[in-house]
Amino acid sequence: MTRPLSVALAGLGTVGAGVLRLLRENAEVVTARAGRPIAVTAVSARDRTRDRGTSLAGLRWYDDPVALAAGKPVVTANTALIAVHGAELAAAAERAGVALGFEAAVAGGIPVIKALREGLAGNRITRVAGILNGTCNYILTVMRERGREFAEVLAEAQKLGYAEADPSFDIDGIDAAHKLAILAALAFGRPVAFDAVHVEGIRRISALDIAFAGELGYRIKLLGLARRSAAGIEARVHPCMVPQGAPIARVDGVFNAVVAEGDFVGRIMLEGRGAGAGPTASAVVADLIDIARGRVTPVWGAASGALSQVPSVPMEAHVGPYYLRLMVVDRPGVIADVTAVLRDQGISLESMLQRGRSPGEAVPVVLVTHETRESAMRAALARIAALDAVLEDPTVIRIEPA
Amino acid sequence: MTRPLSVALAGLGTVGAGVLRLLRENAEVVTARAGRPIAVTAVSARDRTRDRGTSLAGLRWYDDPVALAAGKPVVTANTALIAVHGAELAAAAERAGVALGFEAAVAGGIPVIKALREGLAGNRITRVAGILNGTCNYILTVMRERGREFAEVLAEAQKLGYAEADPSFDIDGIDAAHKLAILAALAFGRPVAFDAVHVEGIRRISALDIAFAGELGYRIKLLGLARRSAAGIEARVHPCMVPQGAPIARVDGVFNAVVAEGDFVGRIMLEGRGAGAGPTASAVVADLIDIARGRVTPVWGAASGALSQVPSVPMEAHVGPYYLRLMVVDRPGVIADVTAVLRDQGISLESMLQRGRSPGEAVPVVLVTHETRESAMRAALARIAALDAVLEDPTVIRIEPA
Repeated sequence: MTRPLSVALAGLGTVGAGVLRLLRENAEVVTARAGRPIAVTAVSARDRTRDRGTSLAGLRWYDDPVALAAGKPVVTANTALIAVHGAELAAAAERAGVALGFEAAVAGGIPVIKALREGLAGNRITRVAGILNGTCNYILTVMRERGREFAEVLAEAQKLGYAEADPSFDIDGIDAAHKLAILAALAFGRPVAFDAVHVEGIRRISALDIAFAGELGYRIKLLGLARRSAAGIEARVHPCMVPQGAPIARVDGVFNAVVAEGDFVGRIMLEGRGAGAGPTASAVVADLIDIARGRVTPVWGAASGALSQVPSVPMEAHVGPYYLRLMVVDRPGVIADVTAVLRDQGISLESMLQRGRSPGEAVPVVLVTHETRESAMRAALARIAALDAVLEDPTVIRIEPA
Repeated sequence: MTRPLSVALAGLGTVGAGVLRLLRENAEVVTARAGRPIAVTAVSARDRTRDRGTSLAGLRWYDDPVALAAGKPVVTANTALIAVHGAELAAAAERAGVALGFEAAVAGGIPVIKALREGLAGNRITRVAGILNGTCNYILTVMRERGREFAEVLAEAQKLGYAEADPSFDIDGIDAAHKLAILAALAFGRPVAFDAVHVEGIRRISALDIAFAGELGYRIKLLGLARRSAAGIEARVHPCMVPQGAPIARVDGVFNAVVAEGDFVGRIMLEGRGAGAGPTASAVVADLIDIARGRVTPVWGAASGALSQVPSVPMEAHVGPYYLRLMVVDRPGVIADVTAVLRDQGISLESMLQRGRSPGEAVPVVLVTHETRESAMRAALARIAALDAVLEDPTVIRIEPA
């Protein structure tokens, strides 16, 4: 096992350049832990001349990355690839008898894939939840800390490089949903099913909702949540109100966190940086070291044939408490109309808040429900939105025990 | 790889019985993840007749556990064994070419051994710190929440089964030091060195210190800390003041947490239940699944020959801020005498607190220092304790950035 493991890098962006740098700077540590040197010997990238902060001298250059792939173990940080094509890729890797590593695809440097697939492998996992997108968590954190609106904070995040010029992939929850699909597949031992994830982003969260959340003892987080019940697997990404005292409520800024609950282990939380060249390189190299050591794990934790075909539970069947914020005309009878709609749908109220009085003007009203079925809430919302005195589309945020 | 992995259990206490139960209840999950069944086929325990909540029918019984061991892979939850004899055991396992798993020996079900040895394997780890003993964390949490004294809370914890009848192994910090020695060896890639760990327990922490800590913006936690600097490795277990806002400050009750800092990954925190039949069985079975899959990692992360011989830094060389609480006679000149001693040792003060006045009586005085060398603090303490107006041995708690 002293022959070096030769690595070809397809792409020399943030991730590729970070891996190259780590393998060089930490060569001694990596060699000791891998049992042999790991050396980048070939690269493929679009631009051969760009300065990447590290020398490319002595590396074979390929213009076509496909030349690097055939029949070799693959390590990737490409979340969307694994979330969308993970099942076929796993089958192909299994046929070829090679590894497919993707620790870097979820939660950056946090070794959450390894934790779910190996560290908690003896457990029936009942729930996995996480803050999976650092851009959204950063925006929500700054909105709360400074009492500012979404659009301003997004613009600032774009200037700082924490959000992309086209931010929809992050802020509409798609990236988090890709990551959740991967975690759910590993946690529940079933084929990855991105299409079954219900997705909502954070565009509609306002400073007002964040202030109300604080008043009610909650913080607003974009969570990915997957739960296994007798009916099947529920997987969803949306803004949540979580109790201020819950560990995940305190994970702020660009940090990610993943909570897993197993029947024997209880609740585990892992927290760390979810993105960036360093954390991503750390995860990619962990996968490379596994390959160098010959440590083999099936892509989804069990052989394709041993994965279970648990059905997905549609979002309409979700049950939980809801926060509902309306802008209504401040006049007698409005609350009676709204609560009558809720009553008709069998929705029971836990609390109601109306702050300030300005007769004839728009005022916010907050309603918190007891456990409610999503389908009932949707029916109620359609009727509430149609009421004369209700001025904007209602804002709905699900409340999670965290 | 479909031949079952046969397991012999040496001991059927909390851990052994928990493993037996997990392997039976989650047989389907374990088989899928291990690629083959894992079955307990033999046991050794003192009492053959005790009810362990699960049937022993069909298992071969050995009165002598040594009969089970020769040349076989071994998985253990015995922290002291690994901390004290880990180097020889690793050498023996290496010679025999078999695995030695001890995920369950540190932080219960939290897969921290796997995280350090594999998940973060590409990093130079600079620091590892943790809440490693649930009994101490439970006692400190209850003392803070209810404003009660150590002795009372310990007695209550003993009644509830959270502390042993002879609690010294936990409350004097020895168990935490065993765990820290293991984590430091893995993090820094050097042979385990329990004797090099500086150990202090929590017996001397009073309700008064916990109240002052709150006032100063800290919480008191028993931490195990290991740090790598140019001089070598500093490893210590003692009560610490950590900022209230630090993630580890919020880890309460019987929970454990481990923070690791790596040069590429940044800071990672893992949190969960550190003890109990379920979490421990989860960790033991994770090791068994690694063995069933043939996933092999050297005991200390690298082959014995590849471990580095980094020197240990003695506690006297530690540098950091200190909290110092004295009980002094309330009369003019006392503070002048105390601060003169500190000045003579080159110790600079950040703040001083004296609450309440009762001339001629005992009052507490709290001093917080800037960065101070342990050796200077010890010299100062000896002189301060000898002052006429100082009524008890001073209480010293080191302040950590968390």
